[in-house]
Amino acid sequence: MELIDGNQIAAVIVAELQTQVAALTGRKPCLALVRMGDDPASVSYVRKKEKTAAEIGVTSRIILPPATTTQSELFALLDQLNADAEVDGILVQSPLPKHIDEVAVFRRVAPEKDVDGFNTLNLGKVAQEDDTGFVSCTPAGIMELLGRSGVDLKGKHVVVLGRSLIVGKPVALLALQKRAGANGTVTICHSATANLPDITRQADVLIAAIGRPEFVTADMVKPGAVVIDVGINRVPDPAKKTGYRLTGDVHFPSVAPRCEKITPVPGGVGPMTVAMLMKNTLKAFHLRSAR
Amino acid sequence: MELIDGNQIAAVIVAELQTQVAALTGRKPCLALVRMGDDPASVSYVRKKEKTAAEIGVTSRIILPPATTTQSELFALLDQLNADAEVDGILVQSPLPKHIDEVAVFRRVAPEKDVDGFNTLNLGKVAQEDDTGFVSCTPAGIMELLGRSGVDLKGKHVVVLGRSLIVGKPVALLALQKRAGANGTVTICHSATANLPDITRQADVLIAAIGRPEFVTADMVKPGAVVIDVGINRVPDPAKKTGYRLTGDVHFPSVAPRCEKITPVPGGVGPMTVAMLMKNTLKAFHLRSAR
Repeated sequence: MELIDGNQIAAVIVAELQTQVAALTGRKPCLALVRMGDDPASVSYVRKKEKTAAEIGVTSRIILPPATTTQSELFALLDQLNADAEVDGILVQSPLPKHIDEVAVFRRVAPEKDVDGFNTLNLGKVAQEDDTGFVSCTPAGIMELLGRSGVDLKGKHVVVLGRSLIVGKPVALLALQKRAGANGTVTICHSATANLPDITRQADVLIAAIGRPEFVTADMVKPGAVVIDVGINRVPDPAKKTGYRLTGDVHFPSVAPRCEKITPVPGGVGPMTVAMLMKNTLKAFHLRSAR
Repeated sequence: MELIDGNQIAAVIVAELQTQVAALTGRKPCLALVRMGDDPASVSYVRKKEKTAAEIGVTSRIILPPATTTQSELFALLDQLNADAEVDGILVQSPLPKHIDEVAVFRRVAPEKDVDGFNTLNLGKVAQEDDTGFVSCTPAGIMELLGRSGVDLKGKHVVVLGRSLIVGKPVALLALQKRAGANGTVTICHSATANLPDITRQADVLIAAIGRPEFVTADMVKPGAVVIDVGINRVPDPAKKTGYRLTGDVHFPSVAPRCEKITPVPGGVGPMTVAMLMKNTLKAFHLRSAR
């Protein structure tokens, strides 16, 4: 069994991007990070993104609209950023307060600055295998993890557990694409799937993204499979200072010994997300510069 | 074995739309049909669409740019139709001449008039399960055939043969949606799939859309399956006046006896396409009127 080390792979990507940014003469790529309100998880996510941007040499612009901001005020702010020639990428940190329609907000971000890949048009481009769009960061990170670990999906059966818009559907569309590294046969399972273990046991590559702690057990995994665990769940643990521990959607202790390769949680898919956001920001910069 | 009669189901839908249009006071829905050049298949498709529109009471406007039209001239024409308040839906008949970039043309049609559902934004909306978009006509027709034949996909294993942008991918996304009639577990197979018969034999519902005549044989189908045959292939047949016969992607004589239900070719999925185009045109009319 080999561990797929997301921290290490993400660090390699960050170093590559650093080199690319250092070679730029003139203006550096700029990422606008919009964080509405003070959700503690959002605060920590945005801080991490700001820190990685600084490492790479990407300028970040932090915008902190108060939690009371209305949807139309938020739209006006996004319209300003969309029109701002100095801004290459825009990320609106979720979760947003309940009075805001998240999908409408993601759709308001100009497609060519949508480095989070949540705009409907960019999702459509993933289906169309059109490289001018942006792939959302978690599915893009999964494909990078696989590619950089030497896993070629061609002719493999890829089973995706979960049909979310953020992970399950886009990663299924990516695994299916007619291109080097992809070309997988893809099955998507979810809460309404019958005989789930019969299907997951067929997976050469199993991608678990359902948000249920340690849901995937050894009997659901074929010996020699590659397992990608997208879940990040908090499980109460009195032995920890924080009172909880982080666990994935996979029961790691029993599943890992069966696998050819597996991602740990934390330290697997998680670290890739920020790296892919930075990669998208550089892509946005280059696409805009080329126009 | 029960035959799913596409002609009959399409006729029911056409009659429903007729009633709806008859009840409209004021302006009738208008569909612009753009046919560039004189490809014989295109001529016959557009004629069929015009005829069905007339039956329903939808106004059609036939526009016939010559085969020598440049892409920018075609764009200018589409921009005019996009801006025309009298036009509800726009269809550009494919195939287009080789000097035209089809995907770019489909993207030029305003999303709110894209009754063919080929615009990237409308494809993204299918992934997002957003009902304000348009589903392309063949996959929408397949879902209607299933629904009106009493086939509920919930908990069923749906295997899609073919990953095309026009059929395979959108029908997979539709079958997967979290809504009544859908909720299937979906597998998408294609030319790079290993052990294909092992996978197709798991299908409760098998959707064949690969464009290979009589490719699906009895040994690939589970007894009691529902089979939807999307293929329309011409096979040489000296016994026919035309010199060919039409056949699907399924070897009907051997497969049909094993099935619970199956669509014939012709007379299965084919007739649904025009009916769904008309349904989309009415939807476009209502969405535009509601604004």
